[in-house]
Amino acid sequence: MEISRNAFIGCDCGYEEAEAVIFGAPFDSTTSFRPGTRFGPMAMRTESFGIETYSPYQDRDLSDFMIFDSGDIELPFGSPEKPLEMIECTATEILDDGKMPFLIGGEHLVTLGAVRAAVKKFGKIDIIHFDAHADLRDDYLGVRLSHACVMRRCNELDGVGKIHQFCIRSGDRSEFVYADKNTDMNKFGFDNLAEAVNELKEKNTPVYFSIDLDCLDTSVFPGTGTPEAGGVSFNELLNAIIRVSECNVIAADINELAPMLDPTGASTAVACKVLRELLLSVLGNKKERI
Amino acid sequence: MEISRNAFIGCDCGYEEAEAVIFGAPFDSTTSFRPGTRFGPMAMRTESFGIETYSPYQDRDLSDFMIFDSGDIELPFGSPEKPLEMIECTATEILDDGKMPFLIGGEHLVTLGAVRAAVKKFGKIDIIHFDAHADLRDDYLGVRLSHACVMRRCNELDGVGKIHQFCIRSGDRSEFVYADKNTDMNKFGFDNLAEAVNELKEKNTPVYFSIDLDCLDTSVFPGTGTPEAGGVSFNELLNAIIRVSECNVIAADINELAPMLDPTGASTAVACKVLRELLLSVLGNKKERI
Amino acid sequence: MEISRNAFIGCDCGYEEAEAVIFGAPFDSTTSFRPGTRFGPMAMRTESFGIETYSPYQDRDLSDFMIFDSGDIELPFGSPEKPLEMIECTATEILDDGKMPFLIGGEHLVTLGAVRAAVKKFGKIDIIHFDAHADLRDDYLGVRLSHACVMRRCNELDGVGKIHQFCIRSGDRSEFVYADKNTDMNKFGFDNLAEAVNELKEKNTPVYFSIDLDCLDTSVFPGTGTPEAGGVSFNELLNAIIRVSECNVIAADINELAPMLDPTGASTAVACKVLRELLLSVLGNKKERI
Amino acid sequence: MEISRNAFIGCDCGYEEAEAVIFGAPFDSTTSFRPGTRFGPMAMRTESFGIETYSPYQDRDLSDFMIFDSGDIELPFGSPEKPLEMIECTATEILDDGKMPFLIGGEHLVTLGAVRAAVKKFGKIDIIHFDAHADLRDDYLGVRLSHACVMRRCNELDGVGKIHQFCIRSGDRSEFVYADKNTDMNKFGFDNLAEAVNELKEKNTPVYFSIDLDCLDTSVFPGTGTPEAGGVSFNELLNAIIRVSECNVIAADINELAPMLDPTGASTAVACKVLRELLLSVLGNKKERI
Amino acid sequence: MEISRNAFIGCDCGYEEAEAVIFGAPFDSTTSFRPGTRFGPMAMRTESFGIETYSPYQDRDLSDFMIFDSGDIELPFGSPEKPLEMIECTATEILDDGKMPFLIGGEHLVTLGAVRAAVKKFGKIDIIHFDAHADLRDDYLGVRLSHACVMRRCNELDGVGKIHQFCIRSGDRSEFVYADKNTDMNKFGFDNLAEAVNELKEKNTPVYFSIDLDCLDTSVFPGTGTPEAGGVSFNELLNAIIRVSECNVIAADINELAPMLDPTGASTAVACKVLRELLLSVLGNKKERI
Amino acid sequence: MEISRNAFIGCDCGYEEAEAVIFGAPFDSTTSFRPGTRFGPMAMRTESFGIETYSPYQDRDLSDFMIFDSGDIELPFGSPEKPLEMIECTATEILDDGKMPFLIGGEHLVTLGAVRAAVKKFGKIDIIHFDAHADLRDDYLGVRLSHACVMRRCNELDGVGKIHQFCIRSGDRSEFVYADKNTDMNKFGFDNLAEAVNELKEKNTPVYFSIDLDCLDTSVFPGTGTPEAGGVSFNELLNAIIRVSECNVIAADINELAPMLDPTGASTAVACKVLRELLLSVLGNKKERI
Repeated sequence: MEISRNAFIGCDCGYEEAEAVIFGAPFDSTTSFRPGTRFGPMAMRTESFGIETYSPYQDRDLSDFMIFDSGDIELPFGSPEKPLEMIECTATEILDDGKMPFLIGGEHLVTLGAVRAAVKKFGKIDIIHFDAHADLRDDYLGVRLSHACVMRRCNELDGVGKIHQFCIRSGDRSEFVYADKNTDMNKFGFDNLAEAVNELKEKNTPVYFSIDLDCLDTSVFPGTGTPEAGGVSFNELLNAIIRVSECNVIAADINELAPMLDPTGASTAVACKVLRELLLSVLGNKKERI
Repeated sequence: MEISRNAFIGCDCGYEEAEAVIFGAPFDSTTSFRPGTRFGPMAMRTESFGIETYSPYQDRDLSDFMIFDSGDIELPFGSPEKPLEMIECTATEILDDGKMPFLIGGEHLVTLGAVRAAVKKFGKIDIIHFDAHADLRDDYLGVRLSHACVMRRCNELDGVGKIHQFCIRSGDRSEFVYADKNTDMNKFGFDNLAEAVNELKEKNTPVYFSIDLDCLDTSVFPGTGTPEAGGVSFNELLNAIIRVSECNVIAADINELAPMLDPTGASTAVACKVLRELLLSVLGNKKERI
Repeated sequence: MEISRNAFIGCDCGYEEAEAVIFGAPFDSTTSFRPGTRFGPMAMRTESFGIETYSPYQDRDLSDFMIFDSGDIELPFGSPEKPLEMIECTATEILDDGKMPFLIGGEHLVTLGAVRAAVKKFGKIDIIHFDAHADLRDDYLGVRLSHACVMRRCNELDGVGKIHQFCIRSGDRSEFVYADKNTDMNKFGFDNLAEAVNELKEKNTPVYFSIDLDCLDTSVFPGTGTPEAGGVSFNELLNAIIRVSECNVIAADINELAPMLDPTGASTAVACKVLRELLLSVLGNKKERI
Repeated sequence: MEISRNAFIGCDCGYEEAEAVIFGAPFDSTTSFRPGTRFGPMAMRTESFGIETYSPYQDRDLSDFMIFDSGDIELPFGSPEKPLEMIECTATEILDDGKMPFLIGGEHLVTLGAVRAAVKKFGKIDIIHFDAHADLRDDYLGVRLSHACVMRRCNELDGVGKIHQFCIRSGDRSEFVYADKNTDMNKFGFDNLAEAVNELKEKNTPVYFSIDLDCLDTSVFPGTGTPEAGGVSFNELLNAIIRVSECNVIAADINELAPMLDPTGASTAVACKVLRELLLSVLGNKKERI
Repeated sequence: MEISRNAFIGCDCGYEEAEAVIFGAPFDSTTSFRPGTRFGPMAMRTESFGIETYSPYQDRDLSDFMIFDSGDIELPFGSPEKPLEMIECTATEILDDGKMPFLIGGEHLVTLGAVRAAVKKFGKIDIIHFDAHADLRDDYLGVRLSHACVMRRCNELDGVGKIHQFCIRSGDRSEFVYADKNTDMNKFGFDNLAEAVNELKEKNTPVYFSIDLDCLDTSVFPGTGTPEAGGVSFNELLNAIIRVSECNVIAADINELAPMLDPTGASTAVACKVLRELLLSVLGNKKERI
Repeated sequence: MEISRNAFIGCDCGYEEAEAVIFGAPFDSTTSFRPGTRFGPMAMRTESFGIETYSPYQDRDLSDFMIFDSGDIELPFGSPEKPLEMIECTATEILDDGKMPFLIGGEHLVTLGAVRAAVKKFGKIDIIHFDAHADLRDDYLGVRLSHACVMRRCNELDGVGKIHQFCIRSGDRSEFVYADKNTDMNKFGFDNLAEAVNELKEKNTPVYFSIDLDCLDTSVFPGTGTPEAGGVSFNELLNAIIRVSECNVIAADINELAPMLDPTGASTAVACKVLRELLLSVLGNKKERI
């Protein structure tokens, strides 16, 4: 009898032959409102069997690629320093083995670990960031390693060039002031995405791509700690992802699904489809570029 | 004291005088992911009292028509053969009495029973099919009478001409290949619906109209076994239904509501409104054509 | 140690210095379908800490204004006469103190209490009414003080000029007939809102602004007693509110959130954001007009 | 085709031949905490198909008796006077036709209507009352026709002898003081029930039997507006019902199920089984006494 | 990187060295009321990390034993014949390899597959059956392979000696009549369990042990399709399991958890603890007997 | 107009005159399974209006005492050090002002902050600890300030004498070994509680009383992160609390309610009643001892 695996649909090759590696970071200890994103990656694996491996949008299939799902890192709860180190370590291993890491959160803070690894590997990167929230606070109730500060912390890293933010529609006034001076913030939707992508393509800048799923409208994605009205539709997000994948994406993450907050399961189903399309577009475009 | 009936709002005339008959087929035994559509028709009856009989969209009222709601057929669970026979039998009785059947599922497989009855009655029909899923598999884990195969089975019936599919955004690759050769598949939305309807009107083809409610976006209709992101809005569906009702619709169904999966009740409320608009447009247009 | 207050975020100044006063009317005894709006105002206070005080849409912050949240009136359940008196009394006190009242329901009937107070204070007012339902019945099962009759009762008040209704998509036939003769009804969305606002601005008519949150689509706002498909999006509502705030708004309400009906919490989050934007636009425009 | 009825399982004979009549009173307008009992009787009918008609406890079957379920009275919402009149009127009709009424609430206030009818019919009755709450307030926020006052109102009726209360574990101090002087209150459980029943049997006193299902422990019956810890188990309630049915029970009710408050459905399942056992024991013992 | 496994806590040895094998049968197609037990085994694996491997009741630890969790069999939905064959086949393989099978359902019908395998292997067995429902119908709406008939079908197998039923408190009259003549039925609880076990021990009869978790009270285990009030407590079930494990248990199953029906997760947590105690008592006693 | 307060029912006196002070610690960052206890204290305040201030068990009323509810401390999320300091600081202030602190968690780790304050104040204390889980791990995934270690950390404090543990039914083997040597552990229930209390009374030992509500059975209290079957009933807990209050209790806490995990609200209602009875018994007995 075979061992029962628990992998995202169509992502069941071995590590050695994999071109891409999915790993989950079930961490939500700094979440300030409603926790539960720790259950995000596991729920996405289980519920992925409600979608297909094939995308009629891209006419590509997960079985066309070699993807390994390594499961969740076993992270301690409480202080974020140790979990961030463990995430960085895993992402580094994957990058050093010449594979592309796809991180599933957990809260958005997990991105910092993967970005550190990407900077270490590539020297200089830009970040494309889809989110309802600016995540640019200097601290949150005195805590600097908080989900509400993650893009501020990323921006302070040597090696991170420009952060291109889209769909932002929430933050305190100081975050928007900070963004004016320090990031390429695009409020509410995807205006200017095409221009940003074109510039990054021309320069072949390595791009870290971080998707906070709450960029989606609350109607599409209520299953998250801090749903924020006025977001984009699934189709808008899909088109934006396909657009971004024209860049030289070197790592990506998808985070902030809190599956128990949406008992209909629709949020998890949406997250699964976003991950499938992200994998297919990034890996497919990479293959075509070769 | 009167007997307490349980009928869809405004559908309480007697069978004899009825021009249309609603019947429920509470079957979901072949559902491969999340079951629960068996509770769909009963929930729609109970919750229909949250909507009105009058439509401001069409300026028509259910009380303008003679509609009988015969309740649910008592179907055995397990093997689908017997339930399909019982559905076919009921639809046949209704058609033979010169009334129009409106079937409420249940899973989509129930359509096969009603289509068999329609073919027997009208000889040659086309099908208009709104759905997120192609439902064109040849078998599902070896089972050929499965919700995932229902349009394939319909297509194999003598007497079924063309199946016009709309909103399709999920399936495995083989289904899309099959569709290219065998059906009139229109992906994602209602592009080309006007043309298809015009052609059917010109030829006065008898049309069976099957609505899988998961054609709607997951935000509008999360209460279904396999919600699929990227669907149409309620207003888009409403307009499409009104458009289809210009054809010679001879029978229709609406299916895949799993009411317990959406604890807000919004999915059931949407389903009730879709059924009201379907009844009003199909019966209203029929009357006007006379 | 300080007393623990329970106020909507950013609305924690004292009554004396306040320019605006929020008060809740937790009443839902005439609700005919699914009750629960009594919990609306309390849920909005608790959950308001999931949003920010700052609006990137308007570049205004609740902390720029002096707003007092006086909590919920303690209303008896059952007969509506006494609660309506108590609501009228509170609104009158606020208006007489030169402050602007913002009422949170509760079911829509609570509006009648506040409108009575506004008429007493201003003599002659118009009402702008956003709602899925016409609320123009003469009685509901023999009851004339019912949520389904509230705009009919308002219309009968001396001092109420024209009621401008938007987003209406449900009612029985008689309500639409009544509207044709008696109100400025605009079905389905916000067509003609700009014209109505311009006319009211020109005449500087005092405007009572009543928002039944079920004007929103069921996908955005399932957490209400009678969700009605085909509504407007959050962004459409937001723009309409900003438009209305160009008028001489002298009081406003927001009602029909039933928080327990949406276990995802998204409906409550939406309601909080609507209230923030309503406060900022009405109070901000008022300040600018001075 | 037959009309689809909606009756409690096994209660589908005609009115004429019936020895007992079930009727629902979907009223909860005076509920002061969490409403929703209006959906109780309808949910019990729908979910009754999850239980059997046969009781292994009593070796009796609902099909052994002639029971008619007349559905729900269509009650207006808001003021309680009119609904109470309508309930009294229905109960009177049933009693005058020589049948036994079984009322399903709704909130506990509905009992008052049925008790008025019973007093009118029998002149002098006692009441056996199972409840977590004393329901002996003189008024609730100034309202005297409130669920919290129902047993006080019953006690004030000429013709009501003694009210025997069991399982009481909540109330304000004044209610317990009132009980000391005015009712036969037995706190927490069923101590002294046997004695009370024996005395009533000896005198053959006509007994109205009112069961507020929140007498059950919150673990067994969370689906009610005001769950109160420390209640009795299902088996204890079952034995108590069988005991009470040795009296000359002339009418009964069962109330306070709020089905939507328990998404597991277990509370509704419990309520159905309680009603079955109540019907079988009261009707069975009555038959045996003849 | 290691492959991510999905096994019940503490059950992660390899197949070869295993003394016991857990396998899931996610089948619920014949469920007549509320489906969803198909998700039972997967939910138990995921949620098992909320309990410990150690039992303070037995002072034993899952790590003291060699247990392999082989995951779920991939079963087709619809007709039960094929799934039953596949279950029988898996159980046979395990038994033939000298290991003890522990089957997790799914609906109770899955037991029939495992019992067939046990009879094939051991020739003559008795069954100990804990359940709220008799499961002794000859057919259910004409279907003979139904969860409601499973013990009748087992009883008809050559090789099945006596079925000892406990906790039975639901069924139609005919089932209780059948039981009188054909099974050792013990109603309501565990009276006579000690005697039955002693007799089986004396004769060293091979015993198949089937636990339908709805033997538990609805308060303890609401997460099942047909919760039935009046069941046993967890501690009563625990003691009964320890008692049964004194027999020569040769295979066992645990079934009817429908995890989505209990959003608190308590039912799944209970099921996990029952499985742990079952494994520890059966395997521990077996080891001690050697 | 008055400011709207948010206090536990009957706990609304001022700080100065208070004899007891309630304060909430909404912290759950080290929770390893299902988070959400951060919402516990706020939910208890809101839902406390579903219970009465009067206890028929003790014939005492919250209005007989002077209790101030100071609301929740605003704690940062993530690392536990700072929150523990803030809790200790608040408890110290209360104790130094001669009042008795009642802490509402949050996860169980919050107890450590209050125990530190108690030790500082009283020099030498014992702890009475009701819990399903031993909480005696030395670390959890390397973290020593974890809810799973809280009683181990307390035991290491100078000044903490004996920890008397009751209801313990979960832990790994090492915790039970540690308990054998280091604590007075009583498994499963309240056996030996009377003896322990008598001894503490005789010596007049200052007692810190910590109640993890998951000592209750999962049926009574499913709304907690790690429900553990086989716990005590509400009445057993109530009697145990009354018993413990005979000691010289100098501070107490109640924790681990995660209100969103039990959508029925019953768990929150139970927690409210436990807190009422705890306040009444501890404060009542204290008064009587004087």
